[in-house]
Amino acid sequence: MLEPGQTVGIGPSGRKIIYDADGKPCRSCNEYNDFQFVTGKISKSAAITALSTSNKLASVSSDDLIPGSRTYTKVPPPDVNQLGRSSWTMLHAMAAKFPKEKPTDVQKQEMTKFLTIFSHIYPCDWCAKDFEKYIRENSPKVDNREQLGQWMCEAHNHVNKKLGKPKFNCNFWEKRWVTGWDEE
Amino acid sequence: MLEPGQTVGIGPSGRKIIYDADGKPCRSCNEYNDFQFVTGKISKSAAITALSTSNKLASVSSDDLIPGSRTYTKVPPPDVNQLGRSSWTMLHAMAAKFPKEKPTDVQKQEMTKFLTIFSHIYPCDWCAKDFEKYIRENSPKVDNREQLGQWMCEAHNHVNKKLGKPKFNCNFWEKRWVTGWDEE
Repeated sequence: MLEPGQTVGIGPSGRKIIYDADGKPCRSCNEYNDFQFVTGKISKSAAITALSTSNKLASVSSDDLIPGSRTYTKVPPPDVNQLGRSSWTMLHAMAAKFPKEKPTDVQKQEMTKFLTIFSHIYPCDWCAKDFEKYIRENSPKVDNREQLGQWMCEAHNHVNKKLGKPKFNCNFWEKRWVTGWDEE
Repeated sequence: MLEPGQTVGIGPSGRKIIYDADGKPCRSCNEYNDFQFVTGKISKSAAITALSTSNKLASVSSDDLIPGSRTYTKVPPPDVNQLGRSSWTMLHAMAAKFPKEKPTDVQKQEMTKFLTIFSHIYPCDWCAKDFEKYIRENSPKVDNREQLGQWMCEAHNHVNKKLGKPKFNCNFWEKRWVTGWDEE
């Protein structure tokens, strides 16, 4: 584990550790095991073990390889569930990195525009139309990170409700998408 | 299995089957097992078995539940790999649903704008900066689906190269992201 205040250049995965402007390791820019190591949650050897395990799990049988490739398999195009999970991951992560305070006018306009276009081109038509209507009736709140994170969480809950899924308690949005669960 | 030309309203999952404007089942709007069933790839009973297996795999131990929830667990925020996978899934799927021929000027402008803003707000700064530079030097090609799909595949390969990953053979982009592997 690291001593308090100690920083490292290279993580257990061999990748360079990326720090945010405030000097803290950036969660969404590093591998999970590297991040756990540089934030002192796990030892270097534990990180290396975890990395080699996840690499082993990722390797697949060679039956279904794409012709001419040694690594790419014949994965089918995403279905509606995979597409939904992927897109929410990206959208919540974008909210999590939105300026904490006082985004510029350009940053506010770009986020609003991005969500609006997203609702036009999302590759499931009925999902897109529903999201477009939601945005029309509930303008994205882009005055700061907390506002946008809450807005995104509520937009996601609107979809959860439509799909008969339980509501996520938005009081936990920051732990789920920004800080993780073991920090105060 | 279905007879040729037969259509169904409700899939084995209990969800309504969504069809594209051309009358074919929409891959990115349906669950994978429903799609496999309505396209005649698997029987109804096989689809139901697959669905119940994936539901079982998705259920988790209750140790790590979010306070007050019976289903949501303390999942950590996405790391750089999960964020990358999710974002590429969404971007390729968007290319896969882009108009095959003659997108309108608005559709072309929106796709270009979306990718440009994406390169500003992607929640990993160094990844975003690299993608911004790539877009500046390689304008997105938005004259039809095939062009955009190839452009996206090449943009992804640019990142694969940076990360030391093998190149994906872009001749297969349509099978990977639009049609799947068992159709001609």
